[in-house]
Amino acid sequence: MTRTENLPETMTAVAISEPGGPAVLKPERRALPQPGPGEILIRVRAAGVNRPDIAQRSGSYPPPPGASDLPGLEVAGEVAALGDGAARWRVGDQVCALTPGGGYAEYVKVHASHALPVPSGFTLTEAAAVPETYFTVWHNVFERGGLQSGETLLVHGGTSGIGTTAIQLATARGSQVIVTAGSAEKCESCVKLGAMRAINYREEDFVKVVREVTDGKGVNVILDMVGGDYVDRNYMAAAEEGRIVQIAVQGGMTATANFARLMAKRLVHTGSTLRPRSDEFKGRIAQALEAEVWPLLASRRVAPVMDMIFPLREAWRAHERLESGEAIGKIVLDVA
Amino acid sequence: MTRTENLPETMTAVAISEPGGPAVLKPERRALPQPGPGEILIRVRAAGVNRPDIAQRSGSYPPPPGASDLPGLEVAGEVAALGDGAARWRVGDQVCALTPGGGYAEYVKVHASHALPVPSGFTLTEAAAVPETYFTVWHNVFERGGLQSGETLLVHGGTSGIGTTAIQLATARGSQVIVTAGSAEKCESCVKLGAMRAINYREEDFVKVVREVTDGKGVNVILDMVGGDYVDRNYMAAAEEGRIVQIAVQGGMTATANFARLMAKRLVHTGSTLRPRSDEFKGRIAQALEAEVWPLLASRRVAPVMDMIFPLREAWRAHERLESGEAIGKIVLDVA
Repeated sequence: MTRTENLPETMTAVAISEPGGPAVLKPERRALPQPGPGEILIRVRAAGVNRPDIAQRSGSYPPPPGASDLPGLEVAGEVAALGDGAARWRVGDQVCALTPGGGYAEYVKVHASHALPVPSGFTLTEAAAVPETYFTVWHNVFERGGLQSGETLLVHGGTSGIGTTAIQLATARGSQVIVTAGSAEKCESCVKLGAMRAINYREEDFVKVVREVTDGKGVNVILDMVGGDYVDRNYMAAAEEGRIVQIAVQGGMTATANFARLMAKRLVHTGSTLRPRSDEFKGRIAQALEAEVWPLLASRRVAPVMDMIFPLREAWRAHERLESGEAIGKIVLDVA
Repeated sequence: MTRTENLPETMTAVAISEPGGPAVLKPERRALPQPGPGEILIRVRAAGVNRPDIAQRSGSYPPPPGASDLPGLEVAGEVAALGDGAARWRVGDQVCALTPGGGYAEYVKVHASHALPVPSGFTLTEAAAVPETYFTVWHNVFERGGLQSGETLLVHGGTSGIGTTAIQLATARGSQVIVTAGSAEKCESCVKLGAMRAINYREEDFVKVVREVTDGKGVNVILDMVGGDYVDRNYMAAAEEGRIVQIAVQGGMTATANFARLMAKRLVHTGSTLRPRSDEFKGRIAQALEAEVWPLLASRRVAPVMDMIFPLREAWRAHERLESGEAIGKIVLDVA
């Protein structure tokens, strides 16, 4: 193992002291993780905050077997140590990475293939806001949903980290994006990011608006994190051969839908979650992102929308912010 | 237009005199159809009977614009006339074909690319039992469902025309097939056709049996014509990345399902109906069938399971038989 000199033996991390509300997130001292074969240790400078962190904190989304019990699915920082075979990186390299958990800490170990160079011109705070949403959007919108240039995409939750990423990335790749959001201010943000139409779901019926905007055809792909009574409405809003990709079910797990419509329109309803996927799978997405998306980040054609930054020790405030529903874009923890 | 000598001006056909039960199917005299560019006229010798014919007779499934109002989606017979550009065929060739409707008649016009040579060694009665189910199974199981050799397939309604075709074709192409059926006798027929396990749905829970038979993994593809409360149970019976293809919703159009399960298992729920598809699409399936399946028919590794044959004029009896649920395999009309 190659490592920086003078690595400490312990670090500050924010742990889930017990299942519960934001207040259960508490700083504590932990031993440094030891990178195994194919892994690297990152000195974290910034850590992204995501919805699954909240589910994990509440006790409804336990970490997969072998993963850290600490929350945190993405970080940016410097490579501090190399496990055997992590040949791509040198100690001191600036990277951002998808983590299997453990991001709310001064050090985290990740699979070397899940790290990417910090995009040219990006701060580490910005870079920490990239991995989770970009891995998720890339796989679900472009691979699983098969969105093609010239097609239309409907994104529910347009101002979320996922939503803002999907708007920019799909627009940059030649699609037209329609979003739903919960306020006029949020709708305006989405349009500024490139959405052709933002639907305030408190005032308008998205099925009706989508039909109008697409000349009755419907949208080709729907990225949905709501589920519940959105499922059947998604079937109505989708075009023939439309693909609906479920990445969360915040509106309820079970729902009633018209499957004759799914059949008659030859829809494809699918979905996925990122965290339980294999190291190989995540490494493959990282390669695709570096080839297809990193140039767009370097040229600032796409960039994470930054909402607020909180100190690591105040991670509970970041969770309160995310749960308030008021955030537009990404919330990041500063790990000094 | 090239044509046989002495074509009559009128023909016997069985029409739907009004929406209703089997008794509304009545023979009448009709003018011969005139094949247009790219079409051929077939002197029908046998016509297959299918579920959609019943829906059309009942008034719930009107023929697509431009199609004949006569029922009948598949035939076998001799080419009697050629429209311009129907260069593949000669008058007198024996063919079987998918029709856009109009099969319950002495003559029918079809797109030349939707006709295929009568499989070597097949009677015209057998050949008439091939197109509708083979086009349907090929597209939905192998193209849309992406069934691969070595994967498992669950077929609901194992003794239907679709079911018997799916069992044979998937088995011949290296898959293991599990079916559901409604009696011990039907289950036995399915096993004889090659199913590794037939589940009597009146006595056993297919979700439980599928789990046992697949060592807890679930099946890779499900071909479902039931829908209704089968939808959620299909999600339970499917393996990770499983594909569920809906080709009918005989158990009800709307249903409640757990979409968190669809997401967590990364299922794909899709479906299709054949009749409204484009001529190009159907021609492409015909080409694939001729290349991949016609050799299997010629060698009798697969062959339609024949239930009963009725004279054209007694089409109402064929419908009664199909609606009784007692048929095993295909019902065909003899058009002398």
